[in-house]
Amino acid sequence: MVHGIDVEVDAPLGVITLADPRRRNPLSTTTMAAITDALRRLDGDRDVRVIVMRALGPAFSAGHDLIELVDRTLDDERAVFASCTELMTAVHEARQPVIAEVSGFAFAAGCQLVATCDLAVAGTSARFSTPGVKIGLFCSTPMVALTRAIGRKRAMHMLLTGDVIDAATAADWGLVNDVVDDDGLATAVRELALRIAGSSASTLAIGKAAFYRQIDHTEPEAYELMGETMATNAMTCDAQEGITAFLDKRDPVWTDT
Amino acid sequence: MVHGIDVEVDAPLGVITLADPRRRNPLSTTTMAAITDALRRLDGDRDVRVIVMRALGPAFSAGHDLIELVDRTLDDERAVFASCTELMTAVHEARQPVIAEVSGFAFAAGCQLVATCDLAVAGTSARFSTPGVKIGLFCSTPMVALTRAIGRKRAMHMLLTGDVIDAATAADWGLVNDVVDDDGLATAVRELALRIAGSSASTLAIGKAAFYRQIDHTEPEAYELMGETMATNAMTCDAQEGITAFLDKRDPVWTDT
Amino acid sequence: MVHGIDVEVDAPLGVITLADPRRRNPLSTTTMAAITDALRRLDGDRDVRVIVMRALGPAFSAGHDLIELVDRTLDDERAVFASCTELMTAVHEARQPVIAEVSGFAFAAGCQLVATCDLAVAGTSARFSTPGVKIGLFCSTPMVALTRAIGRKRAMHMLLTGDVIDAATAADWGLVNDVVDDDGLATAVRELALRIAGSSASTLAIGKAAFYRQIDHTEPEAYELMGETMATNAMTCDAQEGITAFLDKRDPVWTDT
Repeated sequence: MVHGIDVEVDAPLGVITLADPRRRNPLSTTTMAAITDALRRLDGDRDVRVIVMRALGPAFSAGHDLIELVDRTLDDERAVFASCTELMTAVHEARQPVIAEVSGFAFAAGCQLVATCDLAVAGTSARFSTPGVKIGLFCSTPMVALTRAIGRKRAMHMLLTGDVIDAATAADWGLVNDVVDDDGLATAVRELALRIAGSSASTLAIGKAAFYRQIDHTEPEAYELMGETMATNAMTCDAQEGITAFLDKRDPVWTDT
Repeated sequence: MVHGIDVEVDAPLGVITLADPRRRNPLSTTTMAAITDALRRLDGDRDVRVIVMRALGPAFSAGHDLIELVDRTLDDERAVFASCTELMTAVHEARQPVIAEVSGFAFAAGCQLVATCDLAVAGTSARFSTPGVKIGLFCSTPMVALTRAIGRKRAMHMLLTGDVIDAATAADWGLVNDVVDDDGLATAVRELALRIAGSSASTLAIGKAAFYRQIDHTEPEAYELMGETMATNAMTCDAQEGITAFLDKRDPVWTDT
Repeated sequence: MVHGIDVEVDAPLGVITLADPRRRNPLSTTTMAAITDALRRLDGDRDVRVIVMRALGPAFSAGHDLIELVDRTLDDERAVFASCTELMTAVHEARQPVIAEVSGFAFAAGCQLVATCDLAVAGTSARFSTPGVKIGLFCSTPMVALTRAIGRKRAMHMLLTGDVIDAATAADWGLVNDVVDDDGLATAVRELALRIAGSSASTLAIGKAAFYRQIDHTEPEAYELMGETMATNAMTCDAQEGITAFLDKRDPVWTDT
């Protein structure tokens, strides 16, 4: 364990584990930097096709390490949130899909991390909240990811009240993709990850990058970008192999990396 | 009652009541201007920490006063919709959270007002519609708030058909946050409002302003804005007090205004 | 049948039928061009007030014609996706509302077409998927419409897994407006279309154009555009007639075209 996380390559999966359960896996600046580094290393590892983000203990993450926010200079505070944004950006910039495996509390920046991951699966014990308002520090950076995941009224409710929502509500609102029994959570995430890992790594990387490239554009701009993305994707070996294999009713063999 | 509304300060709540039930609380230009003025006055009242927008009678609001739209010049018509946009903007610009308490019909600009409020709670009798298409006047300005609250296909359905949706559907689509029995509506809204009012007024104001400042930006731009917002929020007395109180396991005492 | 489609004017409806059921209604470049042409002709036909997009056979559409994507130049590939974007744009640019009537598979560009239509009604047999990832060609252009219809996490799930979702899930996620028995699908769509066609054609055209004009703007910009749209709409004969008829409690008579 380095700075509160474990990183393991279990090809084709890369697994990042928040591993400070006693402190409920706080996202201290060193831990955030460690996760960002881990994401960048896994991004460069051609054996890793899907990344799983999970946590030890009863909480996924309680959010920032509050000790780092007391009696600091403005520049200190800025450094904490810059580090947080760098982590969220690294999740989106990793070429592999990142799946959050969530049991227990995912609060504040922990909730933000779940909202930021490409996919999320929750155990029935999972709980979500942006409780900063209760301690005088509105969850303004978690809000960026949260509003884009669950929409205005529901995000505003979570942000203004700090109320805790359960796993079923999170799935209903689109914060997580699915809810499974806690006992089966690890297995469900692993099966999902391996299923995705069966696709061409090159195609997954093209698609994921394209997703975030188009999302903030107007629809006409997005179509212009995506038309070119899809045309160049179609020229890759894996696309030509995949289409031909489909037409020939056989399994494809991926070669692009 | 002035121009169809009552305004009451019942600290820590400010209550704006649409008070022309016989005419189903029309949003005439004078009423819209009166609500806008009331919002601005409450915005400046440091005793008011949450604003409730409610209505007398069986309807929340039937929308614009149609008399004002017949046999007018183009500039007259422009003035009506400019006044309406000014009202919706005032809801977002008020430093306090604004909660819509909705029973009965909320139609056209009345539906827009509900979509615009930061939070909304509906009684089971609440009904929502954008019926302008049926009278030759498409609900184009309500559409701005509606599409941003409930998404494309559902907004298009309401706008193209003028169909009425019930309270449960409105909650399912994210137009309102919750549905309660009509009998318990006022109490439920009051409890929610008081619960929010227990947080730092300064923090609520920072967070609400931040919400609308980031919502229309790209994600990277939003993070840049919100990182700075959260860092400066963290330097406030209320944040330092809130975090310290939390770490000390005691209740915080808010002093910022 | 020309290039895989049938076009029929059954005033006040225009009906475009994908009519190559044996091949599961592929969206070949000639078929996409034919649909685009049909939409533009119907757009200019003043007898047509609502357009229905339906399909023959057990599938709505399996998406692009894969034969057109194998062993091509980059410019060939670009031409396919440019043709596709032109079709989706034509759906939004048609003055009449376009309703998708979906039974069976709507996959890849077929799913994109459903997401793009103004409204969609599904039969219980309808199934939706963006399975390109499985054949090495990520559904990046369908993604543009899909993310804007169902939000981030759910779109990402469909895109990264290629999983098939059923009609009820599509309705829950806002990809379609309603689900009805397959046996009653055509009747339900026809009733919905005729109900909409009873409104002023001019008002519908103003409103639909306004919808797509405001959707990609910031809220203040959208209000500025829509205030002017609504003011000029209010000056039309049909709006004046519609409002007056409503106030007089009589049925309106539309005269604008």
